[in-house]
Amino acid sequence: MLDKIDPTVTISRKDFKAAMAGLEGKLAELQQRVKAAGFPVLILFEGWSAAGKGLLLPKLLNPLDPRYFEVRTFAKVNEEAAMRPFLWRYWRDLPAKGRIGVYDRSWHRTALPQGQKKRGLSARESENFYQDVNAFEKTLIDDGTLIIKLFLHVSREEQKRRFDELRKNPGTAWRVDSADLQQNKQYNANLKKFSQMMKKTGGNGSPWHIIEADDKHYAALKMIRVIIGRIEAHIGNRLAEAPSGSNDNPAATADPAARWLPAVDLTERISKEDYKEKLTFYQNKISELGFLLYARRRSVVFVYEGWDASGKGGNIKRLTQRLDPRGYEVIPIGAPSADELSRCYLWRFMRRMPKDGHLAIFDRSWYGRVMVERVEGLASEAEWRRAYAEINAAERHLYNHGTIIFKFFLHIDKDEQLRRFEERAADPLKRYKITDEDWRNRDKWAAYEKSAEEMLARTSTEYAPWLVVAGNDKRRARITALEYACGVLERELGKA
Amino acid sequence: MLDKIDPTVTISRKDFKAAMAGLEGKLAELQQRVKAAGFPVLILFEGWSAAGKGLLLPKLLNPLDPRYFEVRTFAKVNEEAAMRPFLWRYWRDLPAKGRIGVYDRSWHRTALPQGQKKRGLSARESENFYQDVNAFEKTLIDDGTLIIKLFLHVSREEQKRRFDELRKNPGTAWRVDSADLQQNKQYNANLKKFSQMMKKTGGNGSPWHIIEADDKHYAALKMIRVIIGRIEAHIGNRLAEAPSGSNDNPAATADPAARWLPAVDLTERISKEDYKEKLTFYQNKISELGFLLYARRRSVVFVYEGWDASGKGGNIKRLTQRLDPRGYEVIPIGAPSADELSRCYLWRFMRRMPKDGHLAIFDRSWYGRVMVERVEGLASEAEWRRAYAEINAAERHLYNHGTIIFKFFLHIDKDEQLRRFEERAADPLKRYKITDEDWRNRDKWAAYEKSAEEMLARTSTEYAPWLVVAGNDKRRARITALEYACGVLERELGKA
Repeated sequence: MLDKIDPTVTISRKDFKAAMAGLEGKLAELQQRVKAAGFPVLILFEGWSAAGKGLLLPKLLNPLDPRYFEVRTFAKVNEEAAMRPFLWRYWRDLPAKGRIGVYDRSWHRTALPQGQKKRGLSARESENFYQDVNAFEKTLIDDGTLIIKLFLHVSREEQKRRFDELRKNPGTAWRVDSADLQQNKQYNANLKKFSQMMKKTGGNGSPWHIIEADDKHYAALKMIRVIIGRIEAHIGNRLAEAPSGSNDNPAATADPAARWLPAVDLTERISKEDYKEKLTFYQNKISELGFLLYARRRSVVFVYEGWDASGKGGNIKRLTQRLDPRGYEVIPIGAPSADELSRCYLWRFMRRMPKDGHLAIFDRSWYGRVMVERVEGLASEAEWRRAYAEINAAERHLYNHGTIIFKFFLHIDKDEQLRRFEERAADPLKRYKITDEDWRNRDKWAAYEKSAEEMLARTSTEYAPWLVVAGNDKRRARITALEYACGVLERELGKA
Repeated sequence: MLDKIDPTVTISRKDFKAAMAGLEGKLAELQQRVKAAGFPVLILFEGWSAAGKGLLLPKLLNPLDPRYFEVRTFAKVNEEAAMRPFLWRYWRDLPAKGRIGVYDRSWHRTALPQGQKKRGLSARESENFYQDVNAFEKTLIDDGTLIIKLFLHVSREEQKRRFDELRKNPGTAWRVDSADLQQNKQYNANLKKFSQMMKKTGGNGSPWHIIEADDKHYAALKMIRVIIGRIEAHIGNRLAEAPSGSNDNPAATADPAARWLPAVDLTERISKEDYKEKLTFYQNKISELGFLLYARRRSVVFVYEGWDASGKGGNIKRLTQRLDPRGYEVIPIGAPSADELSRCYLWRFMRRMPKDGHLAIFDRSWYGRVMVERVEGLASEAEWRRAYAEINAAERHLYNHGTIIFKFFLHIDKDEQLRRFEERAADPLKRYKITDEDWRNRDKWAAYEKSAEEMLARTSTEYAPWLVVAGNDKRRARITALEYACGVLERELGKA
C-alpha cells in the first residue's frame, strides 16, 4: 500500500498558490455547514515522525473558526488512560455533533511499536485490536460521524534530513529521540507495519488518505483537498440517505422466541435466617475479592437492568455494602443530558469505565438503547437494531482489556410489580420513588417484555453473559446476585 | 488544638450499640432530605495514617443509598492534577446539588509534608495556600454547600501498634510505607502541623471536627453524630434564612462612577497595510512565545468579554492563528447545562483550566455572573455582589499557581453595534450570528454598561488586570490584543 506511493512528489510555489485559491474560504464555509447539519467530524493524523504535522495542522485550522474545532494530542499514554481499555481516551474526547475534532495521533498507533505496548502486540492482541478498532469506527460512522484518516508519508531520505536539521539546533534537538532515529533506521520494516495497519483498518467506509509529505506545499494542498472532498461527499450522502443510517443489518430478522424470562422460577423464596447468614457470608467474601481485584489491577463492570420496582437499588446496596468505598462507584442512569445527546449513545457510558482495580456499577445502562429507547421510539428501528452488535463489540473491548462484566436483569411478574407500586404509593417515605411514568411503562409491559427477550438473546455473549435474576423475593435476588458475582470473581482471580 | 483532645477515649460495645440505635435510619432519612432540599454535602476525611478510615467510611456509607453518594480518593497527585492549580481536582469532582460527596483526603493535605510538595510549603506558599483554600471554601459554602471536615485523631501509641500489626502480616505490610513510620516517629511535630492547619482553616463557618479514633466504636459513633448534627442544622438554617445566602457583603455599596468605558478612544483607526504588517509580526512573535510557554511549563488563560458583535470571534481567531494548535483550546461559553446548573457557577470554568504549558481562551466566561446573570436576574443580588470577591479569589488561585491571566473587554459604541447587526442581517452567511436575543440585549445597553463598569472596577487586580480594547476598528482591536499579550508574555517569560 504505502510502498506504492511516492512521497517525494512536489508542486511549485506558483502552482500551489493558484490551486489553493478559494480552498480556504471553502473550508471555512464547510465548517459552517457541518455545524448546521449537526454531525461530528473526526480528522485523524497519523504518519512518520517529522512528517510535518506541525506545519500542516495550522494550514488546516487557520481558515476555521476556533470556537468550533478542538485539537487533542494523544502522543503519550498517561496514567488515567493506561489503566483503562485503550479506546477509552478516544471515546472520552469525541467531538460533539456539529464540531470538528482533530486527533493528533489516534488509536491506530496502539498497534504499532510506538504505541501503548513497547514491544508491539502479540498475534492474539493484534487480532483483538483490529476487531475492536473496526467495530469502534463502525459504531461512530453509523452514528453519523465523518472520520477522515490521514497518513503523512515521508521518504526515508527526507525524514533523515529533517532529523539531522532538528538535531543541529540546540533549541530543537530535544524533539528527536532514539525511537525516532530507530524508525528511520528500520524504515522498510516500519513501512510494512504501517501498510499492514492501514490495510486492516481502511475498510468500514473509512479509508486512509496518504498525504505525500516530502514537499510541504504538496502535502498541504492534498490534505485540504481530501478534507474538502470528504466533507462535501458526506453532506451529499446525508441528503441522499434516509436519516436513520445504514439499514443493512443482519439482525433485522424475526423476533426470537420468548425463552429467557419464562424460564425463571419466580416462586422460590429464602427464609429470613438463611438470608441473613448468606448475606454476611457473601458480603465478606466479595469484600475480600474486592481487595484482590485491586491488587491484581482488574476492573469490573456491573450492569443492572430490570423492571421498574424490581429491586435494583436494594440489590446494588447489598452488593456494595462491604466493599471498600474507595474502590467502587455507583452510576445511576437517567435521561441523557444535552451534552450526551450530542454524541453517540455509548459515549456517556464509555467515558465512565472504571480504572483497573476498580468497580463501576451501572443502575440502568447502555441497554436503554434497545429497551426504553426502542419502546418509546426514541431510537429509530435501524438504530436499535444495529445497537446489539455495537454493544457486543463495546463489551468485547472491555473484555479484551481484562474487565470482568456482570449483567443482571432483575425479573418480577406483573402482579408483584403492582403490589410494590401500591406499597410505595402508600408509604410517604417511598412515594417519591413512584411516578406517573412508572404507571405508563407498566401499560407497555408486553412491549418491554419483547424487547427484553430480544436483548437477552442478542447480547448474552461468552465474554459478557446475562444473568436473569428471579426478583419476586427481593432477599433471594440479592443472594443470587452476590453468590453469582463471588463465584465468577473467584474463578477469574484464580481463587476457586 | 489537637493536643487538647484525648484520642484514647473509649465506649463499651453495649453503650455503642444502644447509642447507635436509630442513627443509621436517621442518616438514611437525612440523605433523602438532602436530595429533596437540593444542596451538595461535602464530607472531608483527614487525619493520621492508620487512623481507621477504612473502617469508618463503611460505617458512614452503609446506611446510605449508593446511587446518591460518591467517594473520591485524593491520595496521590497524578500527572493531570500536578500540571494544574492544586484546587483543580477538588473543583472537578464536586458533588452536584442533592448529592453527598465524600473526599478521602482533601485540599488541606497540600499544606502538609505528605502533600503535593515533598518538603512542605515556603512561608509565602503557605500564606497563599491558606488564602486560596479559605476563599474556595467560602465560595462553596455561600453557594449552599455543606462542608463537614473530619479529622481522625489517634494517639502515638495506638498508631504505632497499628503499624506493627499491619507489618506483621505479609498481606498488609505494603500498606505501611516509610512516610507513615516517619509520621509516627515525629508525632509531636506533626501534631503541631496538623493543629496549625486546622486553626488556619477552621473559620468560614466550616469548623474541623476531631474524631477520637483509638477506639473504633467511639470514633464511628462520634462521626455519625457529627454528620447528623451538621446536616440537620444546615437544613434548619436553610429554612430560617433567605434563600439568597449571606448578605453581609461589603461590596454592596454605591455604584462606581463610569470611568472605564468612557476613557476609551473609539475613533482610532489602523491602515490596512499597517494592520497586515503588524498582524504578521505579532502572530509570529506570539507563536514563538507559545513554544517558550510550553518549554517553561507556564499556563495562560484568556478571557474575552464585550458587547454582542464587538468582534470577539475574529479577535480570538487572529490571536490563535499561528499558535501550535496542540497547545491551546478555545472554549465558547453558552447557557449552562443541567450538570453545570447543579453546581457552583465557577465549576464549569475551573474544571477546564489549562495544563501547564497550555493556553485556554474563553469566549465569554465566569464574568457572565456579574453581567448577563445580573442584568437578566438569573443571579440574585447577593449572589452577583459576592461574585466579585469570589472571582478575584479564583483568579488569584490561578495566579498563585503561575498561570498568566488576560482579560479583554472588547468595547464598541451603540452606533457601531447597530451597523454590524444590520450588516449581519443583510448577509445570508452571517445571518445566523444575529438573533432576537441580540436585539433584546441591545435594548438593555445602559444596564449592561453599568454592570460592565462595576465589573471592571471591582475585578481589575494587579494579578489579573482588565484591558478594555477599543473595538470600533476590528483590525485595530486585534493588533491591540496581540501586542498587549506579547508584551506581557515577554515580561513574564523574562524575554523583554
